[in-house]
Amino acid sequence: MLEGVLLDLDGTLVVSWEPIPGAIDAVARLRAAGVPFRIVTNTTTHSRRSLAATLREAGFDVREEELFTATVATAAYLRSHHTGKRCLLLAEGDALEDLEGIEAADEECGVVVIGDAEDKLSYANMNRAFRMLLGGAELVAMHRGLYWMTADGLQLDIGAFVKGLEEAAGVKAVVCGKPSPEFFLGAVGSLGVPAARVAMAGDDVATDVLAAQEVGMTGVLVRTGKFRPQDVERAGSVPIRVVDSVADVPALVLGEGK
Amino acid sequence: MLEGVLLDLDGTLVVSWEPIPGAIDAVARLRAAGVPFRIVTNTTTHSRRSLAATLREAGFDVREEELFTATVATAAYLRSHHTGKRCLLLAEGDALEDLEGIEAADEECGVVVIGDAEDKLSYANMNRAFRMLLGGAELVAMHRGLYWMTADGLQLDIGAFVKGLEEAAGVKAVVCGKPSPEFFLGAVGSLGVPAARVAMAGDDVATDVLAAQEVGMTGVLVRTGKFRPQDVERAGSVPIRVVDSVADVPALVLGEGK
Repeated sequence: MLEGVLLDLDGTLVVSWEPIPGAIDAVARLRAAGVPFRIVTNTTTHSRRSLAATLREAGFDVREEELFTATVATAAYLRSHHTGKRCLLLAEGDALEDLEGIEAADEECGVVVIGDAEDKLSYANMNRAFRMLLGGAELVAMHRGLYWMTADGLQLDIGAFVKGLEEAAGVKAVVCGKPSPEFFLGAVGSLGVPAARVAMAGDDVATDVLAAQEVGMTGVLVRTGKFRPQDVERAGSVPIRVVDSVADVPALVLGEGK
Repeated sequence: MLEGVLLDLDGTLVVSWEPIPGAIDAVARLRAAGVPFRIVTNTTTHSRRSLAATLREAGFDVREEELFTATVATAAYLRSHHTGKRCLLLAEGDALEDLEGIEAADEECGVVVIGDAEDKLSYANMNRAFRMLLGGAELVAMHRGLYWMTADGLQLDIGAFVKGLEEAAGVKAVVCGKPSPEFFLGAVGSLGVPAARVAMAGDDVATDVLAAQEVGMTGVLVRTGKFRPQDVERAGSVPIRVVDSVADVPALVLGEGK
């Protein structure tokens, strides 16, 4: 039934860049069995190239072209919808390398782009973004995750800031990464397998699992990373499968142990 | 019909501490006519004492006991509901003088309190607040205004940050200032006039006007400060009265010019 897999990165394959037990072997088993897979991530602190290098160093057998990132999706969106416009870019890290050709500025911008950022999410920048939105700029969120898991606990993510700006300016953000259907469908399309035969495994019940189910995939929730039982209760809908970790995904896809 | 008045401060009596034309005279006329009034404000950057002094210096005939502030209401709430608990206090300015006896700390707090703050609304502090909320702390917002008017345009207010924390932590903030019914009713109670005979004049259609109408007052929207016609369209309900500015309020209350 399942012929392809999308895997979330943070909280599913790694936590604070440390591989989750069994994750390296899970990827290797998928590769050995000839099951096509992609890593779909909302992590925007790293460029696609540096993500691939970091994962290979950690022991994962992955190639750059197997990575679908929210930053690359954002760059594509900006190039097609906002050609020549300047962006207020609230994002940090070397992912900016994937935004080549996008002109960033601090004033008179037609687009406000929010990616993973900590110090850049200051009150002064939030106020600057708010005023541009009132002036008609579009709000583009690389993703809208609310929190993620780190080695020292859950950490607040940019979705909280996106939500606050939406509320204050009376606008709705365009989301380029997960849970955008276009993002999932782009990754699925590259597998050459219909969505109905693709599993999406992740630790965020809403962004990874239910959103994938919306476009016809089999959602697989892993009990690692940010997973908390109460989030499943609050979600309003249920994941098709729940497994202990990504280590269980190859057997699930290959139909073993049923 | 109307025997008492509540007046908003920022955007209604002043903008960036400059009196709005006719505002000083409006307050003087209410006083001369023997109409009891209170100034009800969500401004939490100043203590009640310094607000009264600032307003008197600007020419307003007001007394400290005529000021109802969100900070004083927050202090009362914390004293009655969180006795002895430490607070993560994200607020700036001398209003902290009104929070005497409240113990502020940066970790292991049972309450997260958000007031007017700019630099304190850093990512690091927002993340600290988020983690405390996950640990069971209560979120207390001095108010939840989304923006206010300054001499150089609309400015993002703390409501955006409150909303983001609510969304990420899955909690609901307790609001101590406007639009809390208790806050309005406390101010009305001090007038000795039933709510049905009190007008509430302000520039925020939701927080000042519609919230006051919810507790039975006559809401009066002024077209100064942050007033924008589209906010009235978005509000879903309508103000009982709309006037050009607070200068029109005495005539309205005294039944003149009808």
